[in-house]
Amino acid sequence: MAVNLPAPDPAQLLAVPGVELGVAMAGVRKPGRKDLLVARLASGTVVAGVFTRNRLPAAPVVLARKHLRGGPVRALVVNTGIANAGTGRDGLKRALEVCEALAAGLGCRAQQVLPFSTGVIMEPLPSERIMAGLPAAVGDLRPGNWAAAAEAIMTTDTVAKACSRRVRLAGGTAVVTGIAKGSGMIRPDMATMLAFVATDAKVAHGALQRITRRTADLSFNAITVDGDTSTNDAFICLATGRGPAARSGKDLKALEAALTKVAQTLAQAVVRDGEGATKFVTVRVERGRNAGECRKVAYAIAQSALVKTAFFAGDANLGRILAAIGNARVAELDAAQVDLYIDRVRVARRGGRDPAYREEQGAAAMKKPEFLVRAVLNRGEAACTVWTCDFSYDYVKINAEYRS
Amino acid sequence: MAVNLPAPDPAQLLAVPGVELGVAMAGVRKPGRKDLLVARLASGTVVAGVFTRNRLPAAPVVLARKHLRGGPVRALVVNTGIANAGTGRDGLKRALEVCEALAAGLGCRAQQVLPFSTGVIMEPLPSERIMAGLPAAVGDLRPGNWAAAAEAIMTTDTVAKACSRRVRLAGGTAVVTGIAKGSGMIRPDMATMLAFVATDAKVAHGALQRITRRTADLSFNAITVDGDTSTNDAFICLATGRGPAARSGKDLKALEAALTKVAQTLAQAVVRDGEGATKFVTVRVERGRNAGECRKVAYAIAQSALVKTAFFAGDANLGRILAAIGNARVAELDAAQVDLYIDRVRVARRGGRDPAYREEQGAAAMKKPEFLVRAVLNRGEAACTVWTCDFSYDYVKINAEYRS
Repeated sequence: MAVNLPAPDPAQLLAVPGVELGVAMAGVRKPGRKDLLVARLASGTVVAGVFTRNRLPAAPVVLARKHLRGGPVRALVVNTGIANAGTGRDGLKRALEVCEALAAGLGCRAQQVLPFSTGVIMEPLPSERIMAGLPAAVGDLRPGNWAAAAEAIMTTDTVAKACSRRVRLAGGTAVVTGIAKGSGMIRPDMATMLAFVATDAKVAHGALQRITRRTADLSFNAITVDGDTSTNDAFICLATGRGPAARSGKDLKALEAALTKVAQTLAQAVVRDGEGATKFVTVRVERGRNAGECRKVAYAIAQSALVKTAFFAGDANLGRILAAIGNARVAELDAAQVDLYIDRVRVARRGGRDPAYREEQGAAAMKKPEFLVRAVLNRGEAACTVWTCDFSYDYVKINAEYRS
Repeated sequence: MAVNLPAPDPAQLLAVPGVELGVAMAGVRKPGRKDLLVARLASGTVVAGVFTRNRLPAAPVVLARKHLRGGPVRALVVNTGIANAGTGRDGLKRALEVCEALAAGLGCRAQQVLPFSTGVIMEPLPSERIMAGLPAAVGDLRPGNWAAAAEAIMTTDTVAKACSRRVRLAGGTAVVTGIAKGSGMIRPDMATMLAFVATDAKVAHGALQRITRRTADLSFNAITVDGDTSTNDAFICLATGRGPAARSGKDLKALEAALTKVAQTLAQAVVRDGEGATKFVTVRVERGRNAGECRKVAYAIAQSALVKTAFFAGDANLGRILAAIGNARVAELDAAQVDLYIDRVRVARRGGRDPAYREEQGAAAMKKPEFLVRAVLNRGEAACTVWTCDFSYDYVKINAEYRS
């Protein structure tokens, strides 16, 4: 069902010097499914992360944030199947147990391990099963294991999500490889979007953190499937420093561009594989007063259940988009100044239907699996782009039937 | 499909002295359907209204607001089928034409007529057809016509919505009768929720406006089907003054209580008849710091697509509700203090699953067509209640197939 999203070709995924990955079947999710991922990071690796803004962060999010503030990170551990969210103190204890067990296996401290979980909320983490699976995952550790890693973090994803790029820096060529999981900003019970992007470039920790935050805003913070934010969202960037350094402004810019491109490809893959998605839609808002209001308008369109069911139907019932713009809660927005386009077709001019617009034009654009909705606010110079999918019967089916 | 919502019994609907209603088939919506309503108000009637906060208000909303600020209102005119929103200057011109035609028929000024429309957005209002239908509607004017009026304003509503109450005031018994249409906060293309409540009590304009605003907050501003706000929403309260006066604080309180009860019944009817609804759910948030944050949390639950699909499935997958609470964007909310109940069953305690909770308990509660979700924030004394429905296949079907 995913929209224009082929499975990643393992041969195209570049190993990142300094990162080894190992996977195992711990029996947390389903029998016979890889559901445990371990990553070992070379010493000197710097790690930056952004986490969910949900006020009920999962136990692993709480712990990962804390460990990230502490010493240098040496390993990541990810399980699918159980989110370890809404689990109170017991959840924190179990997440820490897993870190301790992996630290013992790798010869580091538990505080140097970042834990991640994704799956059903408010059920206890079966930490015993995860700990029992760790030796197999550690035994599997090797650099060229990104495709298996992308598979091991899937929940209801229908396609694994991974991609690589090379970036030329002054001191040589660096590699950027990333993986992600998720079928939307919110992943039902399976709570979440997780993404990990690694590079061998050498970059200072402060610079990496700033790059990570900006990259998130242009990728994972610019998508929606159903408008919810999960308890477990995390996006981690890591730089092993085994490759060329990125110190000059020019090199940092090039590295940031490569990281952003990888993150955008992964974020878009999450939307293309959105629950029940049959359409992939880019929503661009232009000529707003500032980026914030453009973002509000873009999300008002991208999250409206009515707009998304119209996308599903391919029904050029585009007054719904005007109504969504009016509903964006942007103070002083004069809807009578708004122009609206589907691809190159102008649908509305100055808040009303364009007299030249014919509905067949809109219908033709919306019949395609991918198209652009562009709203021009005509009151400033700011812009913003977000990506969304349609809202189909299968979204309801997947979310009503999950677990049963 | 409506949940526990019988059609109103015309014999139970009380005429309101000073209000006459007439309906007609103007051919705006569908052939053979009543789609035009005219109300004539006795001189001395005071009228108060609250309108959509959508920044793209429909032409009739713009005009009704303006006429309401002007002279005393003598008539209302409502059409279904076309919303007259996203129609620019031409839309305003056509709405005014309709007011002028009705004013000529009734012998008042166009500025004394409030127009209302509901239907597809961004299509021109067929004002000629409406004007051609006005004489029949005017010829039909009579006091005991509330059931026909409720039917004439329906769009995709499956059940007409009307209700009456009597209220004892110092000077005698007053009558309150109201009608509404809508299957949600947003009515798709059919944009909207419209509600009209009338009483024969004599009440000052300022008092009525204050009562109307408070009543709206406890009724129509406390429901959601899909989280959107339409371009045409309007809630009008009118008091003809032909009955007993409400002047003392006690009488005003009694009248407000009656108006609120009627408005809540109508608002709940909109949710019970929500698009595709199979469940009617009351969401109550208690012990918040203030009403605003309780409202944010209540709506975060009531609007989450994931929570609503779990309601549909009757799946006691209640971690989704905790995640929604965390997603309410309430600053400083400590989710680890939250208790969660379904009816009388405590599901979560202090942010984590209640050890005594068994999933069969949640499943049994959610199998019923109506139940209560109660979140206790444990940080203050404020509370808020909203009403919502579940999210079913039929929601997608109705919205994907409308117009086709």
